[in-house]
Amino acid sequence: MTDRIREFLKNRKEEGPCLVLDLDVVRDNYGAFARTLPDTKVYYAVKANPHPEILSLLNKLGSSFDVASVPETLAVLATGCTPDRISYGNTIKKESEIATAFKLGVTLFAVDCEAEVDKVARAAPGARVICRIHCDGTGAEWPLSRKFGCEPEFAADILERAHKAGLTAHGISFHVGSQQHNVEAWDRALASTAAVFRTCAERGIMLSTVNLGGGFPAKYVRKTPKLESYGKAIFRSLRRHFGNRIPETIIEPGRGMVGNAGVIEAEVVLIAKRSPEEDTRWVYLDIGKFHGLAETIGESIRYPIRTRRDRDEAGPCIVAGPTCDSVDVLYEKTPYPLPVSLAIGDKVLIEATGAYTSTYSSVGFNGYPPLKSYVIAPTEPALAA
Amino acid sequence: MTDRIREFLKNRKEEGPCLVLDLDVVRDNYGAFARTLPDTKVYYAVKANPHPEILSLLNKLGSSFDVASVPETLAVLATGCTPDRISYGNTIKKESEIATAFKLGVTLFAVDCEAEVDKVARAAPGARVICRIHCDGTGAEWPLSRKFGCEPEFAADILERAHKAGLTAHGISFHVGSQQHNVEAWDRALASTAAVFRTCAERGIMLSTVNLGGGFPAKYVRKTPKLESYGKAIFRSLRRHFGNRIPETIIEPGRGMVGNAGVIEAEVVLIAKRSPEEDTRWVYLDIGKFHGLAETIGESIRYPIRTRRDRDEAGPCIVAGPTCDSVDVLYEKTPYPLPVSLAIGDKVLIEATGAYTSTYSSVGFNGYPPLKSYVIAPTEPALAA
Repeated sequence: MTDRIREFLKNRKEEGPCLVLDLDVVRDNYGAFARTLPDTKVYYAVKANPHPEILSLLNKLGSSFDVASVPETLAVLATGCTPDRISYGNTIKKESEIATAFKLGVTLFAVDCEAEVDKVARAAPGARVICRIHCDGTGAEWPLSRKFGCEPEFAADILERAHKAGLTAHGISFHVGSQQHNVEAWDRALASTAAVFRTCAERGIMLSTVNLGGGFPAKYVRKTPKLESYGKAIFRSLRRHFGNRIPETIIEPGRGMVGNAGVIEAEVVLIAKRSPEEDTRWVYLDIGKFHGLAETIGESIRYPIRTRRDRDEAGPCIVAGPTCDSVDVLYEKTPYPLPVSLAIGDKVLIEATGAYTSTYSSVGFNGYPPLKSYVIAPTEPALAA
Repeated sequence: MTDRIREFLKNRKEEGPCLVLDLDVVRDNYGAFARTLPDTKVYYAVKANPHPEILSLLNKLGSSFDVASVPETLAVLATGCTPDRISYGNTIKKESEIATAFKLGVTLFAVDCEAEVDKVARAAPGARVICRIHCDGTGAEWPLSRKFGCEPEFAADILERAHKAGLTAHGISFHVGSQQHNVEAWDRALASTAAVFRTCAERGIMLSTVNLGGGFPAKYVRKTPKLESYGKAIFRSLRRHFGNRIPETIIEPGRGMVGNAGVIEAEVVLIAKRSPEEDTRWVYLDIGKFHGLAETIGESIRYPIRTRRDRDEAGPCIVAGPTCDSVDVLYEKTPYPLPVSLAIGDKVLIEATGAYTSTYSSVGFNGYPPLKSYVIAPTEPALAA
């Protein structure tokens, strides 16, 4: 929460939940990544929040961009960013999408299997490919499934196939899992990566780049390590596994770039006890899983919820959204402590909601409109991070 | 799947997944509900699919409507439907929303706790209220949580509070759980309902109406009982618990009205084996959890997936969506059998997707646009159901 967001909300007249983003926080986050990992290129993961003003600010600051689709590519190019600063990081692409991105000038694509290499070779001849390897995500609040990435032992074959098909085998990427709390999580993946580099070198293919992915946490309820600790741990691992031939590195922060820049203001619609002897109250907000808080699926992310009554005694609550859908419950397995004095009509602030909220919102489930979002322009001079 | 949908898809030129709805199926479904439960008023659950042409057709056919919000109320009124045919069924409402609906002419509201009664009394003086009671949903594919409904023993107090506040205590509603396979599921809830009717009568409050809710299944992979069996079982239960003083009844089919009217066409973007010794393939479609198939959360709903190669040998697949989100996996716990010959670029048909798909779609997660939907107008004469 920032003073500028507080001020904005004080003056807001409209009804309904909204997300407010303070671009000064985004600017500062970019600065922190750039300072902490000075030899690493920052590719902002657009999917975290593709708001045009976020993209525009990051473009001005010199950021590169990780995109998941053609529309995201177009959104980045619309800021004036050149396509050489775009990485198409989605390993699941239609051949027509690859061709469109390539026509737009994008020359860096992620792959994780031979079929995808063949598509890129046909649709984007001569492009660079980065092979994504699977790593187990231990320590992440939201560990990654087997959906993405080949087993490390197949990466060299995939990259060799790319090389033989006239593509540039550019490097390796991995993702240690979103909201990663273990600063050492990159080490095992970097060990595997170094092994792929060696195998490829033996086959005459010189890889140049390691995409370290995202995973840098936003601070929710649980404490997170400092960004500096991540930077140091990653650098130690790079030294350990690559010696003094450290490759080019890329990071793709999304949540870490914009998560703490946003706050959702919502309203308490109803409070009900389901039986007189129960202590736990049901607290229904005017926002739920289907209008921006999808990351509460499985109660993965526990957002800080603030009220004007936080000094009062707290009691356990099941927190739910406003739709007629029984799945639309945010916190139930682990009830959320909220003030006993909380009342219908109270506003609540759901903090650290700048990432993975507004675009998850449904187009209109139960008739409720998509989550509104507002940005507060960066203080001038914008570049004095 | 209908011939008309097949024909439509054959002629479609655009890229990307889409939902196609055949309004003849909706018309026939309405006819079946009206015929099977002739003494029951049908309130279509708008949230299942609020497409204006569906609402318009159902209005012409004489249906009433169950709405979850003010925007859904407006959508129904836009068809020319009069507000006396609208039930505001969401138990979670802002006082301002109740006031707006009341101004629009809506006079029937659901409540499930005293705080909600007080809101309705203030914002919609003199309106009718139906108290929702909780029932356990045994037999439903998607059982309902404790999110909605009071325990039956508190319903009389809640209705008495409404009565004393100048509202009309109209009746009881419940929901036996979505996609209910047990035709007897209504019996226990009707026993509780009859008990509330008796308690209220002893207090001089004569309830008139039972809202039997939804729960009528669409046919997915599993076989479902015939609608006639539901009608007969419900009528038997009404006789059993109410004798010859059978109350007015309402049903709120949503899934049962439009589920089987729609088919999603999608495309296979990628097929990958994650290791050579694994039999299971990962099949990535251009639609997933965030663009319409949210009901695969927890693998609750298993949609029939058809391909052109269904006569070929099948093998187990993990089916996933196209986004860079590891949660975007449709079927993994129970792999889905798909043809071994399935190829990248193949179209697949995801059947019985007319309900709870298009409005769940995100506004643009990962840059992918919301699910497109098309309707095929009903054959004339539309009313000859």
